[in-house]
Amino acid sequence: MNFCSKCGSDDIHLKMEQERFVRYVCKACGTIHYKNPLMVVGCLPIYEQKILLCQRGIQPCKGYWNLPAGFMEMNETVTQGALREAKEETGLDMELIRLHSIYTSRKKNQVMLHFLAKVKDLDYELNEETVAIELFDFNAIPWDQLAFQSNIFAIQNYLDSLSKNTQSLFIGDSLKEN
Amino acid sequence: MNFCSKCGSDDIHLKMEQERFVRYVCKACGTIHYKNPLMVVGCLPIYEQKILLCQRGIQPCKGYWNLPAGFMEMNETVTQGALREAKEETGLDMELIRLHSIYTSRKKNQVMLHFLAKVKDLDYELNEETVAIELFDFNAIPWDQLAFQSNIFAIQNYLDSLSKNTQSLFIGDSLKEN
Repeated sequence: MNFCSKCGSDDIHLKMEQERFVRYVCKACGTIHYKNPLMVVGCLPIYEQKILLCQRGIQPCKGYWNLPAGFMEMNETVTQGALREAKEETGLDMELIRLHSIYTSRKKNQVMLHFLAKVKDLDYELNEETVAIELFDFNAIPWDQLAFQSNIFAIQNYLDSLSKNTQSLFIGDSLKEN
Repeated sequence: MNFCSKCGSDDIHLKMEQERFVRYVCKACGTIHYKNPLMVVGCLPIYEQKILLCQRGIQPCKGYWNLPAGFMEMNETVTQGALREAKEETGLDMELIRLHSIYTSRKKNQVMLHFLAKVKDLDYELNEETVAIELFDFNAIPWDQLAFQSNIFAIQNYLDSLSKNTQSLFIGDSLKEN
């Protein structure tokens, strides 16, 4: 932040609050410009005992495999956002089963919500963001070609929960990334 | 937003994306200024079969009763944020049991996460934000003096789950508010 978005001044200072939280403060008009983590919402899509993954056509992680997900928008709910992102990235309508995982990346300052979702049909559409869509057997997940830690967290815990026959919500974070 | 926070220009325009999402775009430098929902994290604190509520000393809803919660900060996880907010607003250390509810307010563009939490002791501290703390019996919740819809959603569903002896995660939104 170089300029105050309210008054246009460049008299922006960093202020530390509670010795931990950095705030951008405009000395000209006094506005505090808060920054907070963003929410990413998406699906862990299942079709006939397989996981649907999207190959990314854009950076970051271009060419890697990803669960369909993206930034939650204003004026939508978390479930609407998850279905919208799945539709945008695959062209598919999915049916949400339950919330499966919440993963905080403290490095990216993002909180990812993945809903377990049932894929109804495979009439998918590719686009600039998704250049390929494939179904992966549970024992053939391309672990070293997954785009983000949140994917690994969601898929690993899903496979674990299947082997243990449980239906938990998994909450984790990116300790390893830091 | 009156000025571009990157270049300081006041040549800010509203652009509609996908006919639904409003973006602030700076015509001078091309920066798109995204706005996204914020996360609020907090606790539904239980102490000996009672619910702990905080009376708000500040606006909005000054004088009304509230579950301890607040905006998630950068560089923390959802669980760290919930414990931090509970500590800040009550002075108490709590023990998280599980995620209880996720409530989207599309009016406020906030997503509230409430964790069911065990209160260890009642050695609380008041402050400007919390001017009173009280324990409420399950059959004596001050429904018409609760601060926010998200409190009603979290507490109602908690009492329902007790009566049904279930441990679900409740996901809801503010259809009524719109």
